[in-house]
Amino acid sequence: MTLMNRVKALHVEDMDVVVEPGIGWMELNEYLESYGLFFPLDPGPGATIGGMCATRCSGSLAVRYGTMRDNVISLKVVLADGEVMKTASRARKSAAGYDLTRLLIGSEGTLGVITEITLRLQKLPQSSVVAMCNFPTIKDAADVAIATMHSGIQVSRVELLDEVQIRAINLANDKKLPEIPTLMFEFVGTEAYAREQTQIVQKIASEHNGSDFVFAEDPEEKKELWKIRKEALWACFAMKPKCEAMITDVCVPLSHLAELISRSKQELDASPLTCTVIAHAGDGNFHVVVLFDPTKEEQRREAERLNHFMVHTALSMEGTCTGEHGVGTGKMKYLEKELGIENLRTMKRIKDALDPKNIMNPGKLIPPHICF
Amino acid sequence: MTLMNRVKALHVEDMDVVVEPGIGWMELNEYLESYGLFFPLDPGPGATIGGMCATRCSGSLAVRYGTMRDNVISLKVVLADGEVMKTASRARKSAAGYDLTRLLIGSEGTLGVITEITLRLQKLPQSSVVAMCNFPTIKDAADVAIATMHSGIQVSRVELLDEVQIRAINLANDKKLPEIPTLMFEFVGTEAYAREQTQIVQKIASEHNGSDFVFAEDPEEKKELWKIRKEALWACFAMKPKCEAMITDVCVPLSHLAELISRSKQELDASPLTCTVIAHAGDGNFHVVVLFDPTKEEQRREAERLNHFMVHTALSMEGTCTGEHGVGTGKMKYLEKELGIENLRTMKRIKDALDPKNIMNPGKLIPPHICF
Repeated sequence: MTLMNRVKALHVEDMDVVVEPGIGWMELNEYLESYGLFFPLDPGPGATIGGMCATRCSGSLAVRYGTMRDNVISLKVVLADGEVMKTASRARKSAAGYDLTRLLIGSEGTLGVITEITLRLQKLPQSSVVAMCNFPTIKDAADVAIATMHSGIQVSRVELLDEVQIRAINLANDKKLPEIPTLMFEFVGTEAYAREQTQIVQKIASEHNGSDFVFAEDPEEKKELWKIRKEALWACFAMKPKCEAMITDVCVPLSHLAELISRSKQELDASPLTCTVIAHAGDGNFHVVVLFDPTKEEQRREAERLNHFMVHTALSMEGTCTGEHGVGTGKMKYLEKELGIENLRTMKRIKDALDPKNIMNPGKLIPPHICF
Repeated sequence: MTLMNRVKALHVEDMDVVVEPGIGWMELNEYLESYGLFFPLDPGPGATIGGMCATRCSGSLAVRYGTMRDNVISLKVVLADGEVMKTASRARKSAAGYDLTRLLIGSEGTLGVITEITLRLQKLPQSSVVAMCNFPTIKDAADVAIATMHSGIQVSRVELLDEVQIRAINLANDKKLPEIPTLMFEFVGTEAYAREQTQIVQKIASEHNGSDFVFAEDPEEKKELWKIRKEALWACFAMKPKCEAMITDVCVPLSHLAELISRSKQELDASPLTCTVIAHAGDGNFHVVVLFDPTKEEQRREAERLNHFMVHTALSMEGTCTGEHGVGTGKMKYLEKELGIENLRTMKRIKDALDPKNIMNPGKLIPPHICF
């Protein structure tokens, strides 16, 4: 769908935009900037709005603005029988019928092809504060992220990076950030509000062995910092150029995050592979990048073992095997444990009803053994 | 389901709660108060969480916290074949499979019986400011609500009431509020933040012929004001005790709200029936209470005519026939115009797949003529 990449209509007064699926979120935000608006999701660079719908994607801003689930008003979809369906009106809320918009978001192409998307937009904030803070242990950092959420503060970003990830960033970007567990924060709003929220979180951090906040002051510095964070995966490859990455993407109820990270970190530190930790900590969403040499079978097996370990630990904590990356084929094997067979049978019934010939991205998302 | 009304588990640290469907949102909030938490939806008094899920309900706080769609983590549902399905894990976000939670929310009992709900909770705000402001015309009031949204301010409530609704409130509550178009605002957050937001909106109101803000100062006064607003429908009946009410519930993209309200108001003022206007103006959601004597057929017909007029006007503005009340049987006739036949056929396919014997709330939501 990458050639369908136009903005079809911008409704500034309604704060929504109608786009084709191939447009990237970064290009869209460049287009919107002069109108004082933005689309508040920021997955990896290069992600397209259509792909983001298909995988129910999110990113570091989800803690403040929600995921794709929360930011799509309506879709146009080509169904398996060739009919073109509109999922909803352009009203911001509606109780008119089944929520087909949400059914399509996260369906990974298995129910239809998304050809048009109407997105909710947000006003560009007047002011933002970006700050970093270091911690002696990764558990301290996770505890601060959790305490921040409990305080009722509206952070727009709270990202956790471990010392290995910081080392990778330093190497790739010629930086000298302290190589210990780190939280990156962003607060947005009016100037006074962003400042007030920052002070509250500074206090929380100091109560959990946090260092002083280091602030990014000018707009270029702020932009560079988030760019570095966004490109964290590329930094990992720069550190181990011959490696591939196995990336976990688990998400747990907030109270379990610190324990999940601590248990995972123990396992990762004991492994011969190089592993980095990055978490969207305010959502309970946790990634590990496991770097392995694809020519060495035992390294691939070890990467898979670590991935299994973290998924099963998350599932034992009432979490999910995928917070934002989707199922595809790799995560199908975890769905029954997470959701139960009744859920999978219901998915299969819906899939069969809407795509009886199984022509829409066959073999994805629904485990092959499901029948009824 | 009203006898299934227990709180099954409260997870304070995760800021979620597991409840049975029969519990009311007001009872739930009484239970949560001592934990410093609340569930941020406020439909009519007496609504239950299960019913609110079934109709994808919202209320005056939706402008800040979203609708039921945005505040449910997971459901337990008894399906048509008797199987019990969990729709999702307890993680706050997930990309694991079809969004069956959202499919059930708003399905009005036609796909299954909801027996357990896990809800996202919010921290009770530190501080709130409640204020009222009057306007010479209803269009001025609507314009201020819209301009407030465009300013990027996070109001927690912005409710619009016309002079007839205010008169009903005065009569029923022995009040002396000025009987002209009125906006009721609420701003929440830290004290400084709530005050700052209030000042910004005061400025917007003064630019649109608004009166000075009248503030509700003490907590009891604030509570009473929202109670009066919540009971606005009962105030209408107090004004016309022998009447029934026909209530519209349309919702349009924000830029159309002022025009929709103005055009409706013209039609209502010309009608022999007594009609009051209440809008959740920040969402573009607009209710009219049309009071009619049920023993007089011509009055019922006139009420229906007014309702049709407003629904069709909203649909001509890319709006929805129901913002929050649901479809039932009364709104089925509008769905095809709003959503198109392809959407209705898709709904019917899903309904047939999940409830082949049509035993789940038959005859509701999906128009009877839909086939494929």
